Amino acid sequence: MRITIIGSGNVATHLAAAFKNAGHRIAQVYSRDMHNASLLAYHVGAEAIDDLDQINPETDIFIISVKDDVIKSIAEALTKHGKLIVHTSGATDLQAISAFTNNAGVFYPLQTLSKNKEVDFFTVPLCIEGADDNITRQLVELAQTVSNNVYRVNSEQRKILHLAAVFACNFPNYLYNIAQQLLAEHDMGFEMLRPLILETAQKVQTHLPAEVQTGPAVRNDENTMAAHLQMLNNEPDLKAIYSLLSQEIIKNNNAGHGHG
Amino acid sequence: MRITIIGSGNVATHLAAAFKNAGHRIAQVYSRDMHNASLLAYHVGAEAIDDLDQINPETDIFIISVKDDVIKSIAEALTKHGKLIVHTSGATDLQAISAFTNNAGVFYPLQTLSKNKEVDFFTVPLCIEGADDNITRQLVELAQTVSNNVYRVNSEQRKILHLAAVFACNFPNYLYNIAQQLLAEHDMGFEMLRPLILETAQKVQTHLPAEVQTGPAVRNDENTMAAHLQMLNNEPDLKAIYSLLSQEIIKNNNAGHGHG
Repeated sequence: MRITIIGSGNVATHLAAAFKNAGHRIAQVYSRDMHNASLLAYHVGAEAIDDLDQINPETDIFIISVKDDVIKSIAEALTKHGKLIVHTSGATDLQAISAFTNNAGVFYPLQTLSKNKEVDFFTVPLCIEGADDNITRQLVELAQTVSNNVYRVNSEQRKILHLAAVFACNFPNYLYNIAQQLLAEHDMGFEMLRPLILETAQKVQTHLPAEVQTGPAVRNDENTMAAHLQMLNNEPDLKAIYSLLSQEIIKNNNAGHGHG
Repeated sequence: MRITIIGSGNVATHLAAAFKNAGHRIAQVYSRDMHNASLLAYHVGAEAIDDLDQINPETDIFIISVKDDVIKSIAEALTKHGKLIVHTSGATDLQAISAFTNNAGVFYPLQTLSKNKEVDFFTVPLCIEGADDNITRQLVELAQTVSNNVYRVNSEQRKILHLAAVFACNFPNYLYNIAQQLLAEHDMGFEMLRPLILETAQKVQTHLPAEVQTGPAVRNDENTMAAHLQMLNNEPDLKAIYSLLSQEIIKNNNAGHGHG
């Protein structure tokens, strides 16, 4: 397919490279910042533009991968070309595009992507929604050229996925940060914790998290929890996090692995 | 070395197997439960016992890998044999053993170990403490036969490591559980989140967590956070966790990556 990439951020960069590797042609890369547009365009053999008036209509799909709050205005500006338009946002309704054209869809990669970190794109879950069955089928076909994990997901489910990703990725990373700081304050390096972090994530690749929950809270080891809270007496913020999450683990465990 | 394993739980099982693989001789495996003692003893070619009176004093080291609150009484019972005694607990002072004998140490594996989950033991960080320099050297040598990540760690540092492990392992696993429940409630499977969880842990293998923090909180995206909290209106516990962790990420970000 001929693909036009709108945006030059982390998602745009990984998507463009994956499409290029799969044999698609990246027609143009648009960014407000010509430097960023050029970097990505050069990488994927495309033309760089920084003005939507320079869009070449000879394309099959526009993939809008920009900040959530500018998706609508860009979608509106692109509808005149009469081509399929999709966005890549987890938190944004299909309606942000389908308000302007029925030739609309969503192509949401459920992964944490950084420009300078390679990822095997075939493992990235792609969550697809189309304004009609025909568009959905087209997008699923396109998605399957770059990923082995393609899902049909409606707008409501996609919002749940986006929320769940905060719990599964952003919050754990912040807890890693707390652990790293605790070690640094006592002259120990983060490398001591890296195998533990990796193994914890690897365990849930084949188990459900509730099956492999460990630690003082799940065994209701009150002595250890009291000792840990005591150690955090000078860190009220960490103490609050420790208390809340431990209480939730205890409550959840008593309720038989259901939360709420 | 001739090694006697006291205990048959997760840590005892992995340690015994690692020592056996490294060419050491496991003399005996003790457990209060003869069935458990036999299972592990058979696996590592040792004698199983369920009575401390059956201890064979022809050994070089006793490794006590039992619940924290029984370490002291077992250590006291073993001192009469005059051999080196270590425990494997992150939360317990060296003093739990050195109160009875100077021939004391700690051999703490900083990893989440489950009996039915294989792990490459050479990657497991082993945190070593000895009652004197000579014992420490002996234990470091022994540790280096089974792991490439051997650290000298005093009792205070070990307690910090144990606390940090709760933040780096137990709490993230619970957050994975929350994410899994959110998906299940909307007819989606946990496999959709597994690549994200693994990549999040892999990113911090080469970066510090603060360098790769993503999500609505770190970019202070108030619209997305408000939408997420709205979605959690019927889940007050999850709302409390979302609020607290998001506030902490925002605060930490403004403070320039230091917590507190």
